[in-house]
Amino acid sequence: MIMFNCDYNEGAHPKIIELLEKTNFEQTPGYGEDHYCEKARNLIRKACGRNDIDVHFLTGGTQANLTVISAALRTHQGVLSAHTGHINIHEAGAIEATGHKVLPLPGGSEGKISAAAVEGAVRLHWEDETHEHMVQPKMVYISHPTENGALYSKDELLALREVCDRKGLLLFLDGARLGYGLASADTDVTLKDLCRCCDVFYIGGTKVGALFGEAVVITNESLKEDFCYIIKQKGGMLAKGRFLGLQFLALFEDDTYTKIAREADEQAARIARACTGAGFPLLAASPTNQQFPILPDDLIARLSEKYVFSHWERIDSSHCAIRICTSWATRSEDVDELIADIQALKA
Amino acid sequence: MIMFNCDYNEGAHPKIIELLEKTNFEQTPGYGEDHYCEKARNLIRKACGRNDIDVHFLTGGTQANLTVISAALRTHQGVLSAHTGHINIHEAGAIEATGHKVLPLPGGSEGKISAAAVEGAVRLHWEDETHEHMVQPKMVYISHPTENGALYSKDELLALREVCDRKGLLLFLDGARLGYGLASADTDVTLKDLCRCCDVFYIGGTKVGALFGEAVVITNESLKEDFCYIIKQKGGMLAKGRFLGLQFLALFEDDTYTKIAREADEQAARIARACTGAGFPLLAASPTNQQFPILPDDLIARLSEKYVFSHWERIDSSHCAIRICTSWATRSEDVDELIADIQALKA
Amino acid sequence: MIMFNCDYNEGAHPKIIELLEKTNFEQTPGYGEDHYCEKARNLIRKACGRNDIDVHFLTGGTQANLTVISAALRTHQGVLSAHTGHINIHEAGAIEATGHKVLPLPGGSEGKISAAAVEGAVRLHWEDETHEHMVQPKMVYISHPTENGALYSKDELLALREVCDRKGLLLFLDGARLGYGLASADTDVTLKDLCRCCDVFYIGGTKVGALFGEAVVITNESLKEDFCYIIKQKGGMLAKGRFLGLQFLALFEDDTYTKIAREADEQAARIARACTGAGFPLLAASPTNQQFPILPDDLIARLSEKYVFSHWERIDSSHCAIRICTSWATRSEDVDELIADIQALKA
Amino acid sequence: MIMFNCDYNEGAHPKIIELLEKTNFEQTPGYGEDHYCEKARNLIRKACGRNDIDVHFLTGGTQANLTVISAALRTHQGVLSAHTGHINIHEAGAIEATGHKVLPLPGGSEGKISAAAVEGAVRLHWEDETHEHMVQPKMVYISHPTENGALYSKDELLALREVCDRKGLLLFLDGARLGYGLASADTDVTLKDLCRCCDVFYIGGTKVGALFGEAVVITNESLKEDFCYIIKQKGGMLAKGRFLGLQFLALFEDDTYTKIAREADEQAARIARACTGAGFPLLAASPTNQQFPILPDDLIARLSEKYVFSHWERIDSSHCAIRICTSWATRSEDVDELIADIQALKA
Repeated sequence: MIMFNCDYNEGAHPKIIELLEKTNFEQTPGYGEDHYCEKARNLIRKACGRNDIDVHFLTGGTQANLTVISAALRTHQGVLSAHTGHINIHEAGAIEATGHKVLPLPGGSEGKISAAAVEGAVRLHWEDETHEHMVQPKMVYISHPTENGALYSKDELLALREVCDRKGLLLFLDGARLGYGLASADTDVTLKDLCRCCDVFYIGGTKVGALFGEAVVITNESLKEDFCYIIKQKGGMLAKGRFLGLQFLALFEDDTYTKIAREADEQAARIARACTGAGFPLLAASPTNQQFPILPDDLIARLSEKYVFSHWERIDSSHCAIRICTSWATRSEDVDELIADIQALKA
Repeated sequence: MIMFNCDYNEGAHPKIIELLEKTNFEQTPGYGEDHYCEKARNLIRKACGRNDIDVHFLTGGTQANLTVISAALRTHQGVLSAHTGHINIHEAGAIEATGHKVLPLPGGSEGKISAAAVEGAVRLHWEDETHEHMVQPKMVYISHPTENGALYSKDELLALREVCDRKGLLLFLDGARLGYGLASADTDVTLKDLCRCCDVFYIGGTKVGALFGEAVVITNESLKEDFCYIIKQKGGMLAKGRFLGLQFLALFEDDTYTKIAREADEQAARIARACTGAGFPLLAASPTNQQFPILPDDLIARLSEKYVFSHWERIDSSHCAIRICTSWATRSEDVDELIADIQALKA
Repeated sequence: MIMFNCDYNEGAHPKIIELLEKTNFEQTPGYGEDHYCEKARNLIRKACGRNDIDVHFLTGGTQANLTVISAALRTHQGVLSAHTGHINIHEAGAIEATGHKVLPLPGGSEGKISAAAVEGAVRLHWEDETHEHMVQPKMVYISHPTENGALYSKDELLALREVCDRKGLLLFLDGARLGYGLASADTDVTLKDLCRCCDVFYIGGTKVGALFGEAVVITNESLKEDFCYIIKQKGGMLAKGRFLGLQFLALFEDDTYTKIAREADEQAARIARACTGAGFPLLAASPTNQQFPILPDDLIARLSEKYVFSHWERIDSSHCAIRICTSWATRSEDVDELIADIQALKA
Repeated sequence: MIMFNCDYNEGAHPKIIELLEKTNFEQTPGYGEDHYCEKARNLIRKACGRNDIDVHFLTGGTQANLTVISAALRTHQGVLSAHTGHINIHEAGAIEATGHKVLPLPGGSEGKISAAAVEGAVRLHWEDETHEHMVQPKMVYISHPTENGALYSKDELLALREVCDRKGLLLFLDGARLGYGLASADTDVTLKDLCRCCDVFYIGGTKVGALFGEAVVITNESLKEDFCYIIKQKGGMLAKGRFLGLQFLALFEDDTYTKIAREADEQAARIARACTGAGFPLLAASPTNQQFPILPDDLIARLSEKYVFSHWERIDSSHCAIRICTSWATRSEDVDELIADIQALKA
């Protein structure tokens, strides 16, 4: 079976394995205080064009989300998220387990939330006479790309920044698949823009070539204080922290991170074109490594004999949207084969 | 500088790196549902002599502690621990952050707690007329080896089991350094004994040859239900879970886990003998990979120029106990050199 | 100004004040272990027709909700509620602060949830391959009357009970305004039915004649254990607990609780009839003490000079639904006056 | 039986009952936004000599403790307390349930903690290289009077203030029995001093003449923001909040609060003198309403036939310390009788 069901079916980019092997017996201090972590942090600072940002390496996305949110909010404050946001649906209540409510906003078919929707929700809160009986919205959580593979434009991010400034909110961007967003042919957003727009965001490693690990970038001075305590408390501090540093070192040298993500985006685009070319519409246009073609049930059944992918959403009695994911590890010949099969089986 | 300050200064056992490399491009399902994890679980079941245990791979020790405790206790229940226990001192309030009080018991110089001490604390609770105003002791947390390198005997563990049965308590054993305990020349405790005595325990990987990872073993039926939800909620579920499986596969094939731990214990014993031979007492006898010699301050200063170790406890105005750790990666020639230096510098 | 904005504008029913005064200097044990509490518990048991229920007196509704939910759920479990449910909107994140997600279901205009909706949500959870990444629905929370004054029928409650039994869920009924529901001319639900249908529910005092206090009734054996610890932990245990007992004693002697609620319902019905008689529709029919007439803005402005009520929902550019509440303390002459003013001002 | 076992055996001071009765049918807004609460707040501001303090009325002591601490701390921060402190022992883990560790300090026989002890603990934290792995001490919790009836001197409070300023800590004073402290013949501490020394403290009502209720006083600007949200979230906001205002109104008019406490202190002193006069030592000198005489077991047995009091601590095989509490409601003739019995039975 060829797997297109997610972007974490393989191990790690070979550069990572190589670096791990090469440095294996070197002795270093623990908990991320080694020189590899420091180098990786500096590479990220350079890529961001900022020396004043804090960079922390955490073990995974849910860990990053719950650590950041728990560090930033007081007990009565909540976080606005698209209804389809990962923190609202797919983290087994991780945020609530730290005591905070996720305040869902309609995310639409793209899973994005707009500055206007944020402003509306916040105004509704403060205009309510009994707002002290309600959770206070204090943070905005967005994913880029979203769960649905969509991207914010630079203007949309600037508008969110503006409403956050005006309303005293923090903007947090979940970049679990950030590489596929930055490398997209269809984006005007750079790491520098994220530093300008977000109070805190993370650069996903797990889904973009690392074995695991996310690099949390904090730009807002008030969020920097004591962050390491909270990483430790939530169980996200790796004793052999250098291994997280090594991975981001490998990914950020020679811009490997964006390069491998670009190839994945291109393979995804080939699949999308093959689908539409064969007469199958997409659930929504996606400029990143996830594609959601709407296929007839019998075609899905036939493809399922050879490929693994996710059933995303039933469209009508004879059609489903499926999710096809490429990744840094996707082989061109596997995509060729899938495309050929779609074309062959469409009739 | 030669580092003896902890057991996580190096990377991973070469077998792990090798296996990682060999399997890197294989496609597998995520979240620990792959065949490597299944094989590793089966190897651990075999080593435990039990087919009815659940085995889960988590990312680290604090993560394992907070996940197990949070899964097991109701909101009004607490966990008894030696005052020096890791959960009481060195996890930045991880347990309290899940809502539960750590109920400290005096741990003595060895960091152990006895069945009698547990029984006393529990009796005190239930005899108090206002016990409903107090945290209900429901779990006993012990480390084996303890923070101080000490080990429980089989009789001590059986006595704890007995009091737990009689008082309706759960017994949880933190085995972050378990390998060094199981491999000790001075123990009568086996994995099978742990399965018999504990409701839940874990087999530490991070400090015994893995890059990271702990294998949580659940023997008590009532603790098995829904455990995966809680791993996910607390951020300890690795997307590329197979990498945890691979590591325990490498460690539990051919009994590598115990073999490499035994070598570390032996190197530690050599250092201990060198110290006592040179006239320096040990803070307490330790049969595992940590040794706590009491040295004069000037000797400590001289050794510090060449070796890294921890200052543990001031003994008097001119002596300190230090902690020297060996590990699966300790080189015999480094120990030779340290011993030679202690002998040369003692005068 | 005459206040119709809520059902807690006045103090307590005179029988309560009288009893308080009469018993004031008697010495009793604290924390609800006195004979008044015991008598009140027995009166409630009698009214429920059950000797095997546990009855606890708590200080308020939010307190009761967070205590019950926190006592019943494990960390990964959540509670299904109508989107408009009090716990989802108006408790400042009280439930999330105990670590649990409120899982909202559409409540419709009445604020009720159906057995079918519950079944659907639960099926969706368990059918999802990754359900261990999602909050597990374990409890169903309903209000009776709802926030919108609506009532469940006995059949609806039995259907909820049935789906809860079949799916392993707990049914929790928030009875902050229960008296007004039990006393309604339009209900077939009795306290005995609630005992049969619910695992736990409470009989609201605060809004039905007490100064404060809710009587939590637990019918499910598994929820009874250790409940007092959790009352204490959450701050809901009154030192002079007898005062809670005294209030429910006064309310449950001679069925005072239902009698005073019935009068309030009747006054509310008079207002509803006056509105519809004057040509003003109701947002939804309510058989209890809250009415939601839709009035023209200028009439609302005129009434606002003399009466206090809540603006509930804008209907169109010139009409709003308002909420008018009666209570055990509503004076008939105030209702006469309001009705006369509505009739006089309608043109 | 005559009860001396606590200070909450009776109802409320008659002025409170009277005021409650008088105002019962008046209509007011809920949640403490009525004019009685406002008057009570102003009386307290006046007694404190400060117009810039925030005053909030909460339902009880545990509620006040958990609300204040949860409002003040970030997730990785803990609260220093005497080991015997109420939050450490007698609140069923209320503080931990909000996610925060109580950091115990030895409290000595008086249950007090010194500025030096606080400074030592805080220094130890910051000097530890791995302090980010430990709970950060951020707040100091003291009781005045303590659980053991002892009082801080003004100098001791000023010293605590000084170390808190120097180390960036918050000082929180639990005044559940504050009246008995302020009224003591043996104190130099006034409400004004508390405002000067504490960031936040509360004036206990429950144990000093109210049916229930504590007035939380916030002097530190940074703790004022959004406090009402957190009162609501934790379940401490009374719908008929005016009843809390009425009680403090009654207590703070004409200095009733101190007057009734002074009588209780004097009755307690009479009992203490009778004990020492009869040759029975006190466990520790107490200048407030609790006394801890050490009595022979047979005398205790005889007194137990007629009086209710608490067994506090076994002293030796034939002696126990007991706790005798007076209160605002203690009758002089009951004290006469107790004293006579002690004298008659001593032989």
